Amino acid sequence: MSGVLDISVATAVPGPASKQASEQLNTIFDSRAVHFVVDYDKSEGNYIVDVDGNRYLDVYSQIASIPVGYNNPALIKAAQSPEIISALVNRPAIGNFPSNQWHDILKNGLLAAAPPGLDKIFTAQSGSEANELAYKAAFMLYRRKQRGEGVDWSAEEISSCLNNAKPGSPDLAILSFANSFHGRGFGSLSTTRSKAVHKLDIPSFNWPQAPFPALKYPLEKHEAENAAEEKRCLAKVEELITSWHCPVAGLIVEPIQSEGGDNHASAAFFQGLRDITAKHGVMMIADEVQTGFGATGKFWGHQHWNLNSPPDMVTFSKKAQTAGYFFGNAQLVPDKAYRQFNTWIGDPARVIMSKAVVQEILSKDLAGQCARVGEVLYKEFEKLATKYPNHVKNLRGKGMGTYIAFDTQDAAGLVKSMKQLGINIGTCGTQTVRLRPMLIFTEAHIAPLMSALDQALAASA
Amino acid sequence: MSGVLDISVATAVPGPASKQASEQLNTIFDSRAVHFVVDYDKSEGNYIVDVDGNRYLDVYSQIASIPVGYNNPALIKAAQSPEIISALVNRPAIGNFPSNQWHDILKNGLLAAAPPGLDKIFTAQSGSEANELAYKAAFMLYRRKQRGEGVDWSAEEISSCLNNAKPGSPDLAILSFANSFHGRGFGSLSTTRSKAVHKLDIPSFNWPQAPFPALKYPLEKHEAENAAEEKRCLAKVEELITSWHCPVAGLIVEPIQSEGGDNHASAAFFQGLRDITAKHGVMMIADEVQTGFGATGKFWGHQHWNLNSPPDMVTFSKKAQTAGYFFGNAQLVPDKAYRQFNTWIGDPARVIMSKAVVQEILSKDLAGQCARVGEVLYKEFEKLATKYPNHVKNLRGKGMGTYIAFDTQDAAGLVKSMKQLGINIGTCGTQTVRLRPMLIFTEAHIAPLMSALDQALAASA
Repeated sequence: MSGVLDISVATAVPGPASKQASEQLNTIFDSRAVHFVVDYDKSEGNYIVDVDGNRYLDVYSQIASIPVGYNNPALIKAAQSPEIISALVNRPAIGNFPSNQWHDILKNGLLAAAPPGLDKIFTAQSGSEANELAYKAAFMLYRRKQRGEGVDWSAEEISSCLNNAKPGSPDLAILSFANSFHGRGFGSLSTTRSKAVHKLDIPSFNWPQAPFPALKYPLEKHEAENAAEEKRCLAKVEELITSWHCPVAGLIVEPIQSEGGDNHASAAFFQGLRDITAKHGVMMIADEVQTGFGATGKFWGHQHWNLNSPPDMVTFSKKAQTAGYFFGNAQLVPDKAYRQFNTWIGDPARVIMSKAVVQEILSKDLAGQCARVGEVLYKEFEKLATKYPNHVKNLRGKGMGTYIAFDTQDAAGLVKSMKQLGINIGTCGTQTVRLRPMLIFTEAHIAPLMSALDQALAASA
Repeated sequence: MSGVLDISVATAVPGPASKQASEQLNTIFDSRAVHFVVDYDKSEGNYIVDVDGNRYLDVYSQIASIPVGYNNPALIKAAQSPEIISALVNRPAIGNFPSNQWHDILKNGLLAAAPPGLDKIFTAQSGSEANELAYKAAFMLYRRKQRGEGVDWSAEEISSCLNNAKPGSPDLAILSFANSFHGRGFGSLSTTRSKAVHKLDIPSFNWPQAPFPALKYPLEKHEAENAAEEKRCLAKVEELITSWHCPVAGLIVEPIQSEGGDNHASAAFFQGLRDITAKHGVMMIADEVQTGFGATGKFWGHQHWNLNSPPDMVTFSKKAQTAGYFFGNAQLVPDKAYRQFNTWIGDPARVIMSKAVVQEILSKDLAGQCARVGEVLYKEFEKLATKYPNHVKNLRGKGMGTYIAFDTQDAAGLVKSMKQLGINIGTCGTQTVRLRPMLIFTEAHIAPLMSALDQALAASA
């Protein structure tokens, strides 16, 4: 089976049934962001079907989170397994009472995909939580080193922290980049810099924000300029680390800034970050919530960086269908038990699903497939950019699998037209259309996608 | 079936198989807090079985989170349903692409148990996240009122918030109580005040902490003193709200402070909090993460308060098997879409499980059962307190279902002895043993529990 189905949209989008369902939902649950209401039973592979019976080729994939297709048979099998039924019914407090299967579920699942050099894991439930757990690990390690190995907590530290006061609650910071997105908790949101709608009215920590390189495209025409821009940003990172009002314990960076507009940087830039963070004892956290799990053509986005030593922590979520972070340094395990802890510490049911996802990606080399398909796809986008130079600008994602994006004047309008043409596609940043197909997107799906794009752009050109 | 099984412990606890499994796990996942490793397939109802074959009566219930028993048949049925398999395999970005079943899952599940007056819901994945979402709702509403209804965001607000600066990132606070526990995210942890192990080394917000009433027991002998203590605490709450360095937008309180030592207060105290928060426009958040879902003898712990108007928000997790918060005020829905938002907005698979839990509790009146069984159980504890006055002190939880606790000199030691006698029981605070049986704990389980307690206390007396 080619996995290619007809796309068909017979109503306005959203259609009358979607609108009605959405209005009903809104009486109990905020539904203002609903694009359309879905019949998941009828959705299949790369195709999503709404309650009006419209079938779309889905290259948005639930905000980049569906890994291997709707109603994937291997995932259905995992969802019916005795181990997942037990995990659903007997949800454990994993830190206190893990199941006899927990070790093997991790070992044969998520850890089979662990980034090189990172052989330990802490499980969580969202990308935001994963990042915050990584920040906490960085803060605890920073203070552990400052305190001295084996030095116990002082009475003053113990009492002051309960009052949110120094020295127990120290001023320590995580550095992030302009236009980054790292989540919506109070700690992760303090590192998110993408949009006001995420942050307005919410108290935040006074943490530093470095500029992220604003590269010019096409890259081959702006090599010197772009190298200078990256150098400028690296210098600013080091300046912030050494001059901030409090110690910077960690730095978090996305391999590709995703929510913030699909902003890329070169391997050299990330190598520079690794050098600076290592030099200053700053934990380097790669936020692979969106880039992880194969879409860039490698299992992990940071594998494109060719680092000499791995990031200190790598966080994940979305396509993993669960969340958490990997690490290699045993000192990132806190000095005492119960410091990095919560009731559930993730959800074993979701970790069992992640095992099926990992096995599907590895056994079918879907990361390799993304690399191969992405190369063909990128060439099609080059043609499109040549045909519509005023509407397809700053094309990016060459060599990054299917992680392709471009800028356009009216991204929201284009995406709306595309839905009407049977393509579910998303935006990011302020003027960017981003491709986030599933890992099972193949050469056969390129033609219908490009045909719809051509049609939509021709209409607006 | 009486649901009574033999308890049997044939090894030291943890036994050799538990130790071995825990050591193996520790190579990839911090297992220092593991009590024992569990064979969930052999666990049943109120009984948990470890990998050494020991069977315990479980009155700790995965840190108070197992609602209706291990391998509950109704939950197994839910875990095998087509709707949960679809939710596991096709995990949606609920805010954008909800399923056609989402409305009914909420309506017939969690909302069937919604606290009176609170008819809207936002779903989440942990108690910590639920609380933080409630804080964000409180902050957004505070600023909305301050800004004026319908007044749009200013350019200065929009640009400053991206830099974590005022006015976009305002100084606003949530008030919490000494000894409270509200979670481990950076916002929720700033309101947690229970133990240094939770908070040390983690940066926090400068938010106010009010004293929680330190009641004397038995209550009937200290009526005047306790009323004065509650009055003192209420005065301090009002003083903090009116004098804090920044506006207090919300107040969060547990119906019974659970992690902090099972600290209770009277209905009059909570009525006083409702009056003060209403007077000063402070959102009152009832943190029912541990008290919700029936164990206190009512579905919600705050139903013991007999308020004239409900709390503004009620958060839940644990026995719900999922998480989120209820609210009634339409203004707590932010002024724009995407402000209260994230990729998954909870997990529909877990919300489907919660529907089965709610239906089980309501159809079998398990909250009523907890009230009835708790009354008998409390009388047995009164006898125990009379027999061991030096070891069973400050008995509390009268009229609060099975939510019973007492202080003892060596709580950790007692709990250890109890495990060896086949009872899995937990501690809280610094010197408290807390009972957290499941909702299916019946009169028939009282005798084995009290017999073991008598034996353990006799040995240490």
